[in-house]
Amino acid sequence: MNKLFCSGLIFCYAVVLSASAMAQGTDPLPSWNEGATKQSIIKFVEKVTTPGGPGFVAPADRVATFDNDGTLWVEHPFYTQLVFALDRVKALAPEHPEWKEQQPFKAVLEGDIKTVLAGGDKALLALVMASHAGMSTADFEQIVTTWIASAKDPRWNRPYTDLIYQPMLEVLRYLRANGFRTFIVSGGGIEFMRPWTDRVYGIPPNQVVGSSIKTKWEWRDGDPVLLRLPELNFNDDKSGKPIGINQHIGQRPIAAFGNSDGDLEMLQWATTGKRPGFALIVHHTDAVREYAYGPNTKVGHLEKALVAAKANGWTVANMKTDWKVIFDFEQ
Amino acid sequence: MNKLFCSGLIFCYAVVLSASAMAQGTDPLPSWNEGATKQSIIKFVEKVTTPGGPGFVAPADRVATFDNDGTLWVEHPFYTQLVFALDRVKALAPEHPEWKEQQPFKAVLEGDIKTVLAGGDKALLALVMASHAGMSTADFEQIVTTWIASAKDPRWNRPYTDLIYQPMLEVLRYLRANGFRTFIVSGGGIEFMRPWTDRVYGIPPNQVVGSSIKTKWEWRDGDPVLLRLPELNFNDDKSGKPIGINQHIGQRPIAAFGNSDGDLEMLQWATTGKRPGFALIVHHTDAVREYAYGPNTKVGHLEKALVAAKANGWTVANMKTDWKVIFDFEQ
Repeated sequence: MNKLFCSGLIFCYAVVLSASAMAQGTDPLPSWNEGATKQSIIKFVEKVTTPGGPGFVAPADRVATFDNDGTLWVEHPFYTQLVFALDRVKALAPEHPEWKEQQPFKAVLEGDIKTVLAGGDKALLALVMASHAGMSTADFEQIVTTWIASAKDPRWNRPYTDLIYQPMLEVLRYLRANGFRTFIVSGGGIEFMRPWTDRVYGIPPNQVVGSSIKTKWEWRDGDPVLLRLPELNFNDDKSGKPIGINQHIGQRPIAAFGNSDGDLEMLQWATTGKRPGFALIVHHTDAVREYAYGPNTKVGHLEKALVAAKANGWTVANMKTDWKVIFDFEQ
Repeated sequence: MNKLFCSGLIFCYAVVLSASAMAQGTDPLPSWNEGATKQSIIKFVEKVTTPGGPGFVAPADRVATFDNDGTLWVEHPFYTQLVFALDRVKALAPEHPEWKEQQPFKAVLEGDIKTVLAGGDKALLALVMASHAGMSTADFEQIVTTWIASAKDPRWNRPYTDLIYQPMLEVLRYLRANGFRTFIVSGGGIEFMRPWTDRVYGIPPNQVVGSSIKTKWEWRDGDPVLLRLPELNFNDDKSGKPIGINQHIGQRPIAAFGNSDGDLEMLQWATTGKRPGFALIVHHTDAVREYAYGPNTKVGHLEKALVAAKANGWTVANMKTDWKVIFDFEQ
């Protein structure tokens, strides 16, 4: 039905798919309980895709951005990338005997996470640089691919990529079926996510925005490599999110999804200006099926963004009451 | 015919289009004279799209990168972005009376391009910062959009966006029709290109990689803006090109197109490693229909990359003999 609005970009195919799904009357968000939250998503999508309507947005401008940790997959008790960094430090320890006496490595090797976290950002940065730099981008991709295929979250005893939120996966698909391009905009490492986001979320590498370290062009054995350097390139958090969006996407999103104060500026960026904008916060309220947290945690701290949600009429998804299922494997 | 290989990405539509074009036996590159150059492009595309063939590449991995200045549009006698910067300095001069006595602004206002260029990179950077920074990203987009719609190249008396190479436009379309995603990877400013690349090349903003200045999140009159700062963020030239490709695209291209030594590393990045790779250099050899230059110029200096092309068997497109037409308006 939106065929007339197909632009030079190849959205047409997706839009035609969407029209046929609608014609069949299938529920695009079956894992969401009926109610105001689910309706706010559907109403927004209908508004921006209704040709001739007051909120119509051309397919080329339908950009939606998603935080990753805590919005698309589990981030508690620790960010998955931190678990990866700790595992890497343990794996690399034989090559670094000095780590036995050097913090924060000593604490990691002794399994003393409390001391690691007490070291704050400085300790975390040291761990990230030791575990994420010093190899080529191709080697790092291989390391991540191998780790993500085998590592398991201890609570559910499942790969971390099983711990993605089924309701959010449905939102991603629903938006794409309606001509949106979906992007990840995460504080996490861009090259930690890219090896698996297409398989898991249907989001290809060039639609992933994240934090990064610097790289350097170098020849090794007759072939060029990009060597990963222990130096921060970009911190994709807080106001870094709209800055990263501008750098990578070059368009303002009309819909943004987050779960913590680190997402506040991205949500503001999507909902201000002249076009219709939609913002949704995933509120972790379900200690039984997942975790319950907000102002009481450092990992996914949510306080200011919740105040802004109330003031601005953003949608807040209450995990406990709005989500019929959390993970696909529950079904 | 490649329908079986459609991935989760929405390439299917493009691939189906391609198959039908082939069936009709239409020439995908009508502005190219018959010969080895044209055949090398077609042979590469057939190789990577032949299912079950030894060079087959899945659609999700079909990434092609294009330099802009001198590869997709005219760059002589000066980069179009420099013309824009000079025009902006003239437009802003009333607000800067001090420029009358201050180089390189004095030279710009006196129309003395020779002195401007004699100032080297330092002078050019001063002009770029004075003309490209200090406004919001939205305001800069508007300034570029207005300028590009009205400014004209004096030799052809046409908008700069008319001075795009018809043969290269055909290559872009041919690749996309065969499941490639096409990206611009230019030393030029990313936000100078994005306002018009979709209209002119069919390349959307998030598939444009380029040089950039830093931006800063700020509230103005109750709305957030990204303020453009007079500070270099990223120089997308030479080894910066593969670094920029890695940052923005997150995949190695299997085909790259350039015209100067600034493109050398990008061409190397596309043609080394395990997968089939294709590199093409646009050689400006036609002083009558366009310009003839190579080692004898600073704008689009071509010397090392031509040596590398010979050593590695890359394709060199001789503008004079390979291109039936240069611009669409000639026809």
